[in-house]
Amino acid sequence: MAALFVALIHYPVIDRNGRVVTSAITSLDLHDIARSARTYGATAFFVAHPVPDQREFAGRVLEHWQTGYGRQFDSRRQEALSLIRVVTTLDDAIVEAKRIAGARPLIVYTSARVSGGIGYAELRTRLERADAEPVMLLFGTGFGMAPAMMERADLALAPVLGPGEYNHLSVRAAAGIILDRLRGH
Amino acid sequence: MAALFVALIHYPVIDRNGRVVTSAITSLDLHDIARSARTYGATAFFVAHPVPDQREFAGRVLEHWQTGYGRQFDSRRQEALSLIRVVTTLDDAIVEAKRIAGARPLIVYTSARVSGGIGYAELRTRLERADAEPVMLLFGTGFGMAPAMMERADLALAPVLGPGEYNHLSVRAAAGIILDRLRGH
Repeated sequence: MAALFVALIHYPVIDRNGRVVTSAITSLDLHDIARSARTYGATAFFVAHPVPDQREFAGRVLEHWQTGYGRQFDSRRQEALSLIRVVTTLDDAIVEAKRIAGARPLIVYTSARVSGGIGYAELRTRLERADAEPVMLLFGTGFGMAPAMMERADLALAPVLGPGEYNHLSVRAAAGIILDRLRGH
Repeated sequence: MAALFVALIHYPVIDRNGRVVTSAITSLDLHDIARSARTYGATAFFVAHPVPDQREFAGRVLEHWQTGYGRQFDSRRQEALSLIRVVTTLDDAIVEAKRIAGARPLIVYTSARVSGGIGYAELRTRLERADAEPVMLLFGTGFGMAPAMMERADLALAPVLGPGEYNHLSVRAAAGIILDRLRGH
């Protein structure tokens, strides 16, 4: 089974008006996506933010759960949060993933606005191949990643759809659903 | 396609020690699960809480997004939140769902700790039948619903699993994943 990495991107993302912005780190994104990453056997969950204060905030969230009261409170949560690596940029995440997995990961862009894109069954099969290369799934905060991020990716994944056209999922739900489609049992 | 209802239960749920408690309503649960419910074509999303102050809190969250600044800020979010019905008990939710759908819904309990339980493909097929009865999925907050709630349900759904044994998902992620397994495209 291929090494699977998750990366949560806070810059460049777009706001509701389509402007490129830097979003703030949300504590619940770290918790929810770490728990989903752990459930679906991800090797690491990168939280990328360009602002030092924001990375320090993420570090404090992790420290609370890894060393303090939180650890006693819920060891399963600590087990999930231990997957998190706080980094400055996507490049840093790629370097670290390559170090861990021994090969540069295939970078997969996810967005509700992709048209076309690789299908879930196809990417799932690719992940299951014995000689599969590592894969890193990118998730955007705010109103999603800036289009420039798609240029950084090797592939774009088809959007998650229900029976209708509405697909305005939270990043917490979307990450869980996409991991389930790729690795669920 | 059967009418599908979602109900988020705050009492009786268990805490980390297995004690039966009432959990507090979390604003982000309302947002995330409403967006997933809307994406997967749910007819209504019931938020059940026995405490009047907590129901009023939920009402204020909805009012902000439905009438105030929030509505202009993000109309897609308002569209999702309009699915929410704040009720006191599961019984109230069932009465209201029956009124909307014209028949009592089949009550489906979800939990990470179910052993056995109906499979996703089977429930999905059942939902797709032309003569399908309405279905209501119950989701627990805290560390999940108290076992007594299973007695209230007609069926228990198999737990969501990844490649391993860890399945400590957030209720926000679990609700999205389960809706996707039942109604995703």
